[in-house]
Amino acid sequence: MTFPKHVRIVEVGPRDGLQNEAARIDTATRIDLVERLIAAGLESIEVGSFVSPKWVPQMADSAEVLAAVVGRPGVSFPVLVPNDKGLAAALAAGAREVAVFAAASEAFSQKNLNCSIDESLARFAPVMATARDRGVRVRGYVSCVLGCPYQGEVPVADVVRVARRLIDMGCYEVSLGDTVGVGTASAAARMVAAVAAEIPIERIALHFHDTYGQALANTLACLDLGVAVIDASVGGLGGCPYAAGASGNLATEDLVYMLNGLGIDTGVDLDRLIGAAQFISAALGRPVASRVGRALGDRVARAG
Amino acid sequence: MTFPKHVRIVEVGPRDGLQNEAARIDTATRIDLVERLIAAGLESIEVGSFVSPKWVPQMADSAEVLAAVVGRPGVSFPVLVPNDKGLAAALAAGAREVAVFAAASEAFSQKNLNCSIDESLARFAPVMATARDRGVRVRGYVSCVLGCPYQGEVPVADVVRVARRLIDMGCYEVSLGDTVGVGTASAAARMVAAVAAEIPIERIALHFHDTYGQALANTLACLDLGVAVIDASVGGLGGCPYAAGASGNLATEDLVYMLNGLGIDTGVDLDRLIGAAQFISAALGRPVASRVGRALGDRVARAG
Repeated sequence: MTFPKHVRIVEVGPRDGLQNEAARIDTATRIDLVERLIAAGLESIEVGSFVSPKWVPQMADSAEVLAAVVGRPGVSFPVLVPNDKGLAAALAAGAREVAVFAAASEAFSQKNLNCSIDESLARFAPVMATARDRGVRVRGYVSCVLGCPYQGEVPVADVVRVARRLIDMGCYEVSLGDTVGVGTASAAARMVAAVAAEIPIERIALHFHDTYGQALANTLACLDLGVAVIDASVGGLGGCPYAAGASGNLATEDLVYMLNGLGIDTGVDLDRLIGAAQFISAALGRPVASRVGRALGDRVARAG
Repeated sequence: MTFPKHVRIVEVGPRDGLQNEAARIDTATRIDLVERLIAAGLESIEVGSFVSPKWVPQMADSAEVLAAVVGRPGVSFPVLVPNDKGLAAALAAGAREVAVFAAASEAFSQKNLNCSIDESLARFAPVMATARDRGVRVRGYVSCVLGCPYQGEVPVADVVRVARRLIDMGCYEVSLGDTVGVGTASAAARMVAAVAAEIPIERIALHFHDTYGQALANTLACLDLGVAVIDASVGGLGGCPYAAGASGNLATEDLVYMLNGLGIDTGVDLDRLIGAAQFISAALGRPVASRVGRALGDRVARAG
């Protein structure tokens, strides 16, 4: 197997992670978490979402969180925007990078975005135009790339089509998400290879959920294809690991541990990262969910 | 990546798993677990250990467990034997397959077996001779193949040497164990490639622990080299996942789910396997530890 020399980790814990936790975290704690992630060396940290607080109350304080850290040198702080209204709010809070999202599954798009895939993409046209005018980078998410909770199978051709559209519309990168975590390594590699036939591999990121324990194995198979951007969530935030059907993101610690072992540079200090996982897990009132966080937790706690 | 068509899973939950659990399980429950694993389609199930009950009281009833199932067509039931006295007891209980164990780490051998690696191998000479006379197959374990809790690094040459010795002494297969779970995919693949240069790949099995979440990724990398025998433990038995530094085995459900996805046949019925994991986890008084067991648990519970 051959691997990239450097992998950029997109830390999604403060947004995707905390948004999917039952317990609520106050603004000061969320900012503290982001500061710890910056100190750990992460170069891209998704800090919030400008979706209506009616739908996602956990992210209602995203403007405050973003304002507290934006402009820090060498770190990107993307925030999710659903439409041009969300973009306007994000820009007012100082956003230099935003993320838009579409599904590869028609059924998922209808259920979660209340519109077809094509309608969701059309909705992003003005967002892309304004972002371009303002010099703001746009990242694109594609969900359900290896399966859908509503329609089951998702044809690879649909993933390719949506990813291609997002790049054509001006996204600098697309993050391909296995939202339900059902994919295994061969399917992940086949899907990535199909997308990479249409889009430069440098513009493909992966976003795996560890619901079925497959996230690291899938990542390994795709690193071998040359993918060098991986989304992950500190402490496996995004679903309590003790609940049936837990659906947490790939834990950043488990990813960094593997990449260190493969000799791939990430710029991340593993012990500081575990310290951040311990901090937010304590705030949520539960043990650290990642394997590496548990295995090395005592070492970090003693040192800290 | 290329994969074998069939993988033989060696289920170690009833021995390696339960031996390392704090809670004690009675004999009838342990036999019930083995029956459920047979019904799930496993072709090799490690059911006990004939080590002194002074050291491993959890396995004191191994003769009863073995006697309850041995001779079942199409299934092997290896039991661990530390010396010729253990072998005699195993044979008296009807054993048709036994397993011996050595370490690749000198420090681990001294601490855990109270003798050097060479002394431990010498101790197995009479075991091998008797087993050959009685037509009993012998499996060999090598522990600490990717690291040691006492000496840290373990040279690959030491792993190769011990594995080679076990095969030369008459073991039909060696199971290479990452006892502390610290290895990552590149190191695992390098180690396996070195052993496979001396021993046919068909005689190499792998035994990974998921302490650092790496077990499935490591397995994937080694399947690509042609390894087709993997040890795993139903429900991730072998270390409570909620404790700091938990050190459970790779969960059989997580492995089967991945192999199914890769199109590799195992003969195992995933839902029945999850049912067995639910059964033993309930007996231990805790939730199922595997990701797949949690993700699909409700489906299995409803059907059952």
